[in-house]
Amino acid sequence: MNISLFTVPDIPLIHEGDDIAAIVCERFDLQDHDIVVVVSTIVAKAEGRIIELLDVVPSDSALSIAGQNDRDPRLVQMVLDESKEIILKFPFLLVETENGNVCVNAGVDGSNIDGDRIVLLPEDSDQSAKAIREAVFARTARKVSVIVTDTNGRAFRDGQTGVAIGISGITPTRDWRGQCDLFGKMLEVANEAIVDEIAGAANLLFGEGGDGTPVVVVRGLDCYAKHEGLQPIYFPRSEDVIRDAITRASKQETR
Amino acid sequence: MNISLFTVPDIPLIHEGDDIAAIVCERFDLQDHDIVVVVSTIVAKAEGRIIELLDVVPSDSALSIAGQNDRDPRLVQMVLDESKEIILKFPFLLVETENGNVCVNAGVDGSNIDGDRIVLLPEDSDQSAKAIREAVFARTARKVSVIVTDTNGRAFRDGQTGVAIGISGITPTRDWRGQCDLFGKMLEVANEAIVDEIAGAANLLFGEGGDGTPVVVVRGLDCYAKHEGLQPIYFPRSEDVIRDAITRASKQETR
Repeated sequence: MNISLFTVPDIPLIHEGDDIAAIVCERFDLQDHDIVVVVSTIVAKAEGRIIELLDVVPSDSALSIAGQNDRDPRLVQMVLDESKEIILKFPFLLVETENGNVCVNAGVDGSNIDGDRIVLLPEDSDQSAKAIREAVFARTARKVSVIVTDTNGRAFRDGQTGVAIGISGITPTRDWRGQCDLFGKMLEVANEAIVDEIAGAANLLFGEGGDGTPVVVVRGLDCYAKHEGLQPIYFPRSEDVIRDAITRASKQETR
Repeated sequence: MNISLFTVPDIPLIHEGDDIAAIVCERFDLQDHDIVVVVSTIVAKAEGRIIELLDVVPSDSALSIAGQNDRDPRLVQMVLDESKEIILKFPFLLVETENGNVCVNAGVDGSNIDGDRIVLLPEDSDQSAKAIREAVFARTARKVSVIVTDTNGRAFRDGQTGVAIGISGITPTRDWRGQCDLFGKMLEVANEAIVDEIAGAANLLFGEGGDGTPVVVVRGLDCYAKHEGLQPIYFPRSEDVIRDAITRASKQETR
């Protein structure tokens, strides 16, 4: 068995209103059950999710956090605006975004955009993935899966990896529970977060620097499924042991 | 640009003393700068890192934790024996292994082994990776990178992904800091944990169930480097914000 990952060549700089599905289909001959992996930054740009730093007026809360973390208060304000909940304020802003992803700075990113403009995440990355999947089908009649990605840090380990923040046409995990191992014993815990593994694999080809290749196609891994949305991957609050511990430790600190 | 991942076919059941490098080289024509990704379970089996559950006598501490978490006290004892530090006891045992990886149950695994025998992690996975890399070179004169993997859960997100627990002939991260983005701005934070992205990609092909294909070769990603060991990826304790919060929350609880 083998799988291949291809970068889609010659993707131009993306501007508001650009049709990402069309741009990909014109440059790559997609096949049924290919997985199209797209960096969130270009999705956000196409959706006009760009803020001029000059237009941002930081609140007192943003000023206070920015002072503690040595950050631009306007950037902090944008993070607060994009967040459903602040989990940790110091030494970095760990938040839950409106879409449910827990990450540093709500994915607010000053890279790969000109001047003092900042790219947010797509407003609803699951919806963005679905729109791209449907537009690919409308144009080519190909049934593909779509994953929109960001790069996030991890607990305990340095460095960032690609993760899924929006999906369409694929289930987020592959559940091995109930299947048997090599000796016929039932597997107890094995729910593989395939969309994050695929996002990480594609990230190996994206490149963060100036040689941007923001779309990768994964071929040979048949994960196509009539499933929309990443919600099942986010722990319900009651099961999120690590988040609970961070929250309790923070409360203790501010007492 | 494209990369390919291949499963190495027909890997037999591995027993103590088996030569994994020889088994791979006999079944796959490795090229220079291929990345050979190996599931830790077969490395551990080849190294004889197997414990008979019947031989394990649980301590009072293991009995107490097992009662709280509804686990076999002998399994808990094995986890304690493999751990340098217990970070969280309930509702699961989160530990730092002797090698420095922070994970649940120290990678102690009852799957894919017969009877009441349990597979530990390799004693020193970096050393295991190095031994495989050197044995491949001795046999084929091919310069490959080697990654030994386990599957770990993550904070905030359900499901497990493949992660590196031992490496040789590759640097753990690709540092984009100091490089420029598409508009010539310096990238501030971009240290990509490539070994974990590669481990996750390979995990897509491993299969947890009975169709075990425990070795994957990644071709086309040239990451070959004269670097040994995963230590740079583990946060120094003073920088591990999440671990610190968990530890403080746990102490609070036991007061």
